[in-house]
Amino acid sequence: MTKGFPILTPEQAAALVKHNETVGFGGFTAAGACKVIPLALAERAKAEHAAGRPFKLGVLTGASTGKSLDGALAAAEAIAWRTPYQSDPTLRKAINEGKTKFFDLHLSAVQPTVRSGVLGKVNWAIVEASRVTPEGEITLSTSVGCSNTYVRMADHVLIELNAYHPAELTGFHDLYEPADPPHRREIPIYAPTDRVGSTVIKVDPKKIAGIVHTNKPDESGGFDAPDPVTTKIGENVAKFLVDELRVGRIPASFLPLQSGVGNIANAVIGALGSSAGIPPFMMYTEVIQDSVIDLIEKGKCTFASGCSLTVSPAKLQQIYKNLEYYRSRIVLRPQEISNSPELVRRLGLITINTAIEVDLFGNVNSTHVMGKDLMNGIGGSGDFTRNAHISIYTCPSVAKKGAISTIVPFVTHLDHSEHSVQVVVTEHGIADLRGKAPHERAMAMIENCVHPEYRQLMKDYLTISNKGHVPQTLQNAFGMHQAFLQTGDMRNTKWLS
Amino acid sequence: MTKGFPILTPEQAAALVKHNETVGFGGFTAAGACKVIPLALAERAKAEHAAGRPFKLGVLTGASTGKSLDGALAAAEAIAWRTPYQSDPTLRKAINEGKTKFFDLHLSAVQPTVRSGVLGKVNWAIVEASRVTPEGEITLSTSVGCSNTYVRMADHVLIELNAYHPAELTGFHDLYEPADPPHRREIPIYAPTDRVGSTVIKVDPKKIAGIVHTNKPDESGGFDAPDPVTTKIGENVAKFLVDELRVGRIPASFLPLQSGVGNIANAVIGALGSSAGIPPFMMYTEVIQDSVIDLIEKGKCTFASGCSLTVSPAKLQQIYKNLEYYRSRIVLRPQEISNSPELVRRLGLITINTAIEVDLFGNVNSTHVMGKDLMNGIGGSGDFTRNAHISIYTCPSVAKKGAISTIVPFVTHLDHSEHSVQVVVTEHGIADLRGKAPHERAMAMIENCVHPEYRQLMKDYLTISNKGHVPQTLQNAFGMHQAFLQTGDMRNTKWLS
Repeated sequence: MTKGFPILTPEQAAALVKHNETVGFGGFTAAGACKVIPLALAERAKAEHAAGRPFKLGVLTGASTGKSLDGALAAAEAIAWRTPYQSDPTLRKAINEGKTKFFDLHLSAVQPTVRSGVLGKVNWAIVEASRVTPEGEITLSTSVGCSNTYVRMADHVLIELNAYHPAELTGFHDLYEPADPPHRREIPIYAPTDRVGSTVIKVDPKKIAGIVHTNKPDESGGFDAPDPVTTKIGENVAKFLVDELRVGRIPASFLPLQSGVGNIANAVIGALGSSAGIPPFMMYTEVIQDSVIDLIEKGKCTFASGCSLTVSPAKLQQIYKNLEYYRSRIVLRPQEISNSPELVRRLGLITINTAIEVDLFGNVNSTHVMGKDLMNGIGGSGDFTRNAHISIYTCPSVAKKGAISTIVPFVTHLDHSEHSVQVVVTEHGIADLRGKAPHERAMAMIENCVHPEYRQLMKDYLTISNKGHVPQTLQNAFGMHQAFLQTGDMRNTKWLS
Repeated sequence: MTKGFPILTPEQAAALVKHNETVGFGGFTAAGACKVIPLALAERAKAEHAAGRPFKLGVLTGASTGKSLDGALAAAEAIAWRTPYQSDPTLRKAINEGKTKFFDLHLSAVQPTVRSGVLGKVNWAIVEASRVTPEGEITLSTSVGCSNTYVRMADHVLIELNAYHPAELTGFHDLYEPADPPHRREIPIYAPTDRVGSTVIKVDPKKIAGIVHTNKPDESGGFDAPDPVTTKIGENVAKFLVDELRVGRIPASFLPLQSGVGNIANAVIGALGSSAGIPPFMMYTEVIQDSVIDLIEKGKCTFASGCSLTVSPAKLQQIYKNLEYYRSRIVLRPQEISNSPELVRRLGLITINTAIEVDLFGNVNSTHVMGKDLMNGIGGSGDFTRNAHISIYTCPSVAKKGAISTIVPFVTHLDHSEHSVQVVVTEHGIADLRGKAPHERAMAMIENCVHPEYRQLMKDYLTISNKGHVPQTLQNAFGMHQAFLQTGDMRNTKWLS
């Protein structure tokens, strides 16, 4: 099947890549991320550095990757710059210490930005595949990310052909790349089930510099089981959506759901699945997680369109044993399509994402702690929130055993503004911010979402700030954060008057 | 021509509207805004209040209006709540004093939000027209705004038939209203010149409660002539775009331009028009201002699509004297189409908007002063910035004779995040933030955009904040604003260490 292409060891593949080149890695989350060439690149970087020679790469990805990619390259100090989203502890530390340059992009904007040329040339595309034909047809594995764009634009392509994934995955991907302005047309998707592109990446075989054979599972972890807080958040989201359905603001046929990544998101989707008041629904989302697979099997989720199949190893085996069942129920798309603002608005998505912190007026911080330190990145949250039919943010009301209130007067980094955030849900309740002026929003947040231990503190903030369209006082805006930095507990906040 | 419809005085029309009802006013900016019925409503409110009876309305508009609408209703305390954008001094004061409830919406979101039902029923649509037929075909005047949606959804319609505008305006409007999800299709516009809708609003004649005859010009002011600062900003924008064209990041045929509202925007468009390096271009924008008309006459702007024709009275007469010339060069669309995220991205707009303040990392404040007081509202800036091919913000580097630096460490209200803002231009130069990490962005802003008097202060901020992915220090983040509030001059800032 790989006849005609050089078969390389990971080390031989890594040896082809030069210092200062830019690599576009396939994959999205740990699903479908490369696993052996980046490890070999990291070893090479360490050897070069030991020999006193520089070796750093520009690293483009789809989103986060596995530890063998971001983790290994960061540990080897092999990353000159990196975009977009990451979630690796070693890389995060390097970024926050200023050792690695990181700039963030909305995930739907990565492919157009690379095409625009503003990030320079893509020297290498390195992608994982489940199948390659002598004609240069590449079937990807458990995700798409930006692979189609990186392979098309790169000078050279390296492929990890991973026997862990069945070649029968051909048909699970739908690869559509829009033309750039002024020649761009509509993306002709009108329902999550629509297929509009190619099932494989077609590349000039001469561009394939080599294939590395592997047989390795995705480095995706599992999820924590829902706990009382995430369960309650999930139930509150379900309650809100059932009420919207009842009053007719969601059509009886329901609307497609998007859900963020992580334990809360996984619990929320589980709760929606258990809610008798919510009819069977489709997902048009970024990351397909474990709970979605469970709901597909129960018939509650009738179709899932995503950019990656980021499930636990056991769940993936369940899918692979029943591939023909899932073939008509799952599609994987490039991230500029899974996250397309055009499609988010056209399909009327109900979007559910997780906040690091939210302020009383509905502004959301998705990316940075205390204004400084990057957590992961904005991911697709902006793509979805801005154009949603209904945009929802979830978070537990407190963190660190109550020492941090996730609801504050002013977020320390702002990723989604009050103009785009419509509903906030914690384990305590639902703040529906639509049609409310800033003061009313603050009261809705205090009464419904803030932890009871912090409600009086927040009311006092509004009292001292009670002027202007937005009741804010700059000298107190970060008072709760300052109290935490100084005493380790936001409950020690004293407002300055 | 108005045979069959009740002809009313403004007072008779106003008498039909009841306390607590919601009115959707046509128009967008002062162009095409109603002029006599709202004045009569304001008089009625004053009389009711004098008699001890309540009289307040929910007021939906397209965007800002003229003084006879927002100004008169605000002075009469006749507005219970108001959305979206406004720019009237009396109304602004009432909002900032907490007397009038105001919530903001992205202008492209107003029509979908009203259709969703979340703002309740629209009792009345009150629109200005240049022509009405007995069959209920309404030709609008100098703008569209949300008129098509308000007229369709309202229980009753009142029309100001304004003889100041020629009936021959029929054909200047292109009214397209998308279906709501799950039945939504693409908006079939692929070039600024495409026409896809109706030239008139068609309404059941029985819904027309009456027509008021008027003959009044739009209450649009003129623009200040460009001054040395706005001229230099315009030249810098032109320089940036010429460079992008040269390196091929803008195609040789150029891309459509969007430009914000006001004196800076007017000067920028003028400067682009004078630049020999910029080829003739089209506008796909929200507000068509005076400078666009000048460029159409010079052949530099070959077509302008907008939501309103907000020009000075003299310029409007120039157009009306030459209607057939302009018929093939101007189209007016509903704001959900002029500002559509789908179309902004598809057409590849170069967007140029004005900031109140920008921070070192590229976050933009478009709406509030010192975190509290509403200036006008977000308008369409978010619609355009988020999905632009290239998003540019302009501002003078200082205000109040240098006592305020418009570039600060942390914006006091955040409307457009660093994830969406690509380029910042002041009279001092161009900060191209694309592909730059936060620390690099800050250096680009200091070296190119910050006023020389503030550069050392900003460098010192980076020195004390030099940790983390974003070099921020919460205790100093609003230090410049605090210095201004306490001493009247940001140059007195002392950083806390």
